[in-house]
Amino acid sequence: MDSMPTATGPRAGEAGGERGRAVPPRPTNPMVTPLLTDLYQFTMTYAYWKAGKHQDRAVFDLYFRKNPFGGEYAVFGGLEECIRFIANFKFEVDDISFLRSVMPTCEDGFFEYLKAIDCKDVEVYAIPEGSVVFPKIPLMRIEGPVAVVQLLETPFINLVNYASLVTTNAARHRLVSGKSKTLLEFGLRRAQGPDGGISASRCCYMGGFDATSNVAAGRLFGIPLRGTHSHAFVSSYMGPDEITDKALRRCDGSSTCQDFVSLVQSWLSKIQWANSFVGTFGETNQSELAAFTSYALAFPDSFLALVDTYDVTKSGVPNFCAVALALSDLGYKAIGIRLDSGDLAYLSTEARKFFHAIEEEFGVLGFGKISITASNDLNEETIDALNKQGHEIDAFGIGTYLVTCYAQAALGCVFKLVEINNQPRIKLSEDVTKVSIPCKKRCYRLYGREGYPLVDIMTGDNEPPPKVGERILCRHPFSESKRAYVVPQHVEELLKCYWPGSSDKTSAELPSLKKSRDRCLQHLEQMRPDHMRRLNPTPYKVSVSAKLYDYIHFLWLNEAPVGELQ
Amino acid sequence: MDSMPTATGPRAGEAGGERGRAVPPRPTNPMVTPLLTDLYQFTMTYAYWKAGKHQDRAVFDLYFRKNPFGGEYAVFGGLEECIRFIANFKFEVDDISFLRSVMPTCEDGFFEYLKAIDCKDVEVYAIPEGSVVFPKIPLMRIEGPVAVVQLLETPFINLVNYASLVTTNAARHRLVSGKSKTLLEFGLRRAQGPDGGISASRCCYMGGFDATSNVAAGRLFGIPLRGTHSHAFVSSYMGPDEITDKALRRCDGSSTCQDFVSLVQSWLSKIQWANSFVGTFGETNQSELAAFTSYALAFPDSFLALVDTYDVTKSGVPNFCAVALALSDLGYKAIGIRLDSGDLAYLSTEARKFFHAIEEEFGVLGFGKISITASNDLNEETIDALNKQGHEIDAFGIGTYLVTCYAQAALGCVFKLVEINNQPRIKLSEDVTKVSIPCKKRCYRLYGREGYPLVDIMTGDNEPPPKVGERILCRHPFSESKRAYVVPQHVEELLKCYWPGSSDKTSAELPSLKKSRDRCLQHLEQMRPDHMRRLNPTPYKVSVSAKLYDYIHFLWLNEAPVGELQ
Repeated sequence: MDSMPTATGPRAGEAGGERGRAVPPRPTNPMVTPLLTDLYQFTMTYAYWKAGKHQDRAVFDLYFRKNPFGGEYAVFGGLEECIRFIANFKFEVDDISFLRSVMPTCEDGFFEYLKAIDCKDVEVYAIPEGSVVFPKIPLMRIEGPVAVVQLLETPFINLVNYASLVTTNAARHRLVSGKSKTLLEFGLRRAQGPDGGISASRCCYMGGFDATSNVAAGRLFGIPLRGTHSHAFVSSYMGPDEITDKALRRCDGSSTCQDFVSLVQSWLSKIQWANSFVGTFGETNQSELAAFTSYALAFPDSFLALVDTYDVTKSGVPNFCAVALALSDLGYKAIGIRLDSGDLAYLSTEARKFFHAIEEEFGVLGFGKISITASNDLNEETIDALNKQGHEIDAFGIGTYLVTCYAQAALGCVFKLVEINNQPRIKLSEDVTKVSIPCKKRCYRLYGREGYPLVDIMTGDNEPPPKVGERILCRHPFSESKRAYVVPQHVEELLKCYWPGSSDKTSAELPSLKKSRDRCLQHLEQMRPDHMRRLNPTPYKVSVSAKLYDYIHFLWLNEAPVGELQ
Repeated sequence: MDSMPTATGPRAGEAGGERGRAVPPRPTNPMVTPLLTDLYQFTMTYAYWKAGKHQDRAVFDLYFRKNPFGGEYAVFGGLEECIRFIANFKFEVDDISFLRSVMPTCEDGFFEYLKAIDCKDVEVYAIPEGSVVFPKIPLMRIEGPVAVVQLLETPFINLVNYASLVTTNAARHRLVSGKSKTLLEFGLRRAQGPDGGISASRCCYMGGFDATSNVAAGRLFGIPLRGTHSHAFVSSYMGPDEITDKALRRCDGSSTCQDFVSLVQSWLSKIQWANSFVGTFGETNQSELAAFTSYALAFPDSFLALVDTYDVTKSGVPNFCAVALALSDLGYKAIGIRLDSGDLAYLSTEARKFFHAIEEEFGVLGFGKISITASNDLNEETIDALNKQGHEIDAFGIGTYLVTCYAQAALGCVFKLVEINNQPRIKLSEDVTKVSIPCKKRCYRLYGREGYPLVDIMTGDNEPPPKVGERILCRHPFSESKRAYVVPQHVEELLKCYWPGSSDKTSAELPSLKKSRDRCLQHLEQMRPDHMRRLNPTPYKVSVSAKLYDYIHFLWLNEAPVGELQ
């Protein structure tokens, strides 16, 4: 694999194209190369080339057919990686040799042709990343020589499918948690492979998460990082005797406590005998106490302890409080605890009571508000259940269910030919939801009086755009009786040109990850709430213009064979 | 990211370690670096270092707690990537700078320490990749300085979790399909990211698939590649007039047919008017006929057509047969058809009847046996249902459900500390299935008289191994009353040393992918069938020795706090 791209960073200083546009950096994952595709893309490309059809100008739509997770919306992700991919699309010498070995009957001229291919003749239009999106509306429209665009199909779908799915999942977790909670993505270890982990971290941040545990993703994308310690850390200690360097300097540097271990132990005993706690817990676990003390010595100004290795209420929380109070003596403020098992509603409430009692008993201002993080197989449903029961959790750490999209592990994006050489094309199916919507199209979001989006509409490329204040008929693409007049108060064109190729069209700028995250959060807020609710959400309407409707059904009749009853 | 490893191939010619062992190549995905981990691994490592505990010799077990997919077995995958990872484990200067920026309060000495870390002092024992494995039995045992091994936790789990899950899924698909069917992995576009696609292709092959559509995986791992064309290819043609180069040389090179298009059309008309077919179909779709003809001109000796773009029985199959018969005239043998929608049992049976009728009608020997491939959202259940209904499918192309492990998108592998400085450690939990099994252990598979594996047993590291013909008590680790005497006819030690570090232990060789695939297929066959069946499989027994049992329960009592009833 020595021909694989060797860097993931921007090719600094390089400028590409006739008009001096900067070449976007290579895809984040160096494995994303033109060979990361299905073999049939190459066999088809050869057949196009052999038939002299390879330069035919084709238009493909990339879209999904059904919203994921039983919801009525999705969030679009993956665009930036697609643009990076085509911007650097080029076969290496070794790629060609490999293809020759796989397709030994193909003519030499074909491999010469492949060698010369790039994406200068391709144009990509897309909805901005982080947008709330709906079925059937193209997320991307890709135009170019049919043989080249065909080669983009698999990598584009691969890059968009999971990214959109996991961004949507993150957004759903944000909606169910509410704005005030901190959401931490902890999924790397359970993700479907290393890249699943890295792209999940990026997408979860875009979908509204606050931070990740994934160091590589933190570095690649500038996402805030979070993490403290695990159960193994706790059980790696036998007892406080193990701690040899017991000194801790006060927060203000004014003096040093020579024996922080004893300070912790004296606090533990004070708690044990305080009125509020007497008789509520016995001897706490000494491994755990040692581990907490040791962690506090290492990170006195960011002490957060995992309190469920042995027993939350009888050991973890009292041990944490003893260390936190000792830190407080030296001017440090502990951050909080993490719960990773058991009844999180109950345990968080008990811990909160304990913290309040400590604040009262020892007069440590603010101790009652110490942060409680919960993890352990959380998902939309468990968070919803926790909300209903009542809990005292401030931050959710979510892993498996978030990054593997456990509730629905795939989004069925497709890539359909809708026009070739200006001839609209349709793909029929016995399943009407699988019939493609032909023609090169424009797509608009129409907003109503109250500022909510009302409907998305697709029109033919040459139709005049919907106008503010002008009534327009929006038709269901396949169902004759479903249609409605809309008078938009605001009209937004959805597809922007992100890759003009060598055409003279203006390219929209790829926004920063932070901006895509802002867009996502703004879109989530802007939708009418009944489209977004977890239970029985109202479908958002997706429509076609009257003219496009007629055209779809004309083509359909034209292509479908006439049956014969016998 | 300029510090990211820049090649995925072997570092040719390099030899490492004092004893001249060759360094395994870098991980397949260049993104797998020591930074691909959770932040808390670094914060813990710092706390260990700060407490002077970082060199403490720790033993961790990597295992899963529950079989996936409602089954009673799993297949282990991901080992080779783990070994590649530790063999090349080293922080780059840029990695250290980034970590400094993330952990600004940590002392300089710590970063010096990190800079120097490698895995020479680590030893890794593992079950061979491709083995059938069971819950609680360590898939891997990792020994070494606690601070270093801690850093391996997240990448190891990440590399093993999905690999084992998808290998298991592939094996399940192989079992339900039966040995005679060809299984094709078509998952790249629906996989969770590019790497999900690539590692899925590798693992599905290991789990018993025959080929993949993923060109990059074919190249990286030498997996056979398969693929033909899509619906877009079909609808990109308007009609046969488009085909300009109509000549096709006979298979034996003896002459050239100047107008293959007309030959196809004459065959179509012959079929239409043949006794067997008259009145069964009318005019077939001309786009489709053109596309098939064009594809056959490009690949006359491997013609396989997707026949469901318009209508399988009225257009796709007749068009395919016309092209196949024209090819047959020139000495070529068509491969077959692919069905990608509709009732696959019915359509495959209808297609088979059509092929037999063609064979009979036109005397083309073997035409009835032409291969039928089915795709379209297949999974274990749909294949099982097809088997029950009866079908004529020879090959299954499986994508989404296979590679995303849709039925269960994550395997919960964990990495638990079981011993430190020769002191066994246990992790308790209110949920008994989450209690870890302490001690550095050895693991054996005991075989019975009929050659089937009977039970897996874990013992303490220093216990004598079970002996052939000698009775041994196998105890359930947590349930007092569950135990059984076994007299093994064959004893197999499960954990082999795959990474001896700089110790003088002998390293087992990492087998080739093909060998791991053979092992997997052999293991699947060797298990007692009731453990492997889809419905209500019998659990395979996983046990501990009497001595280990007593030790677990002694430690448990020792660590659990005594409750107080009030």
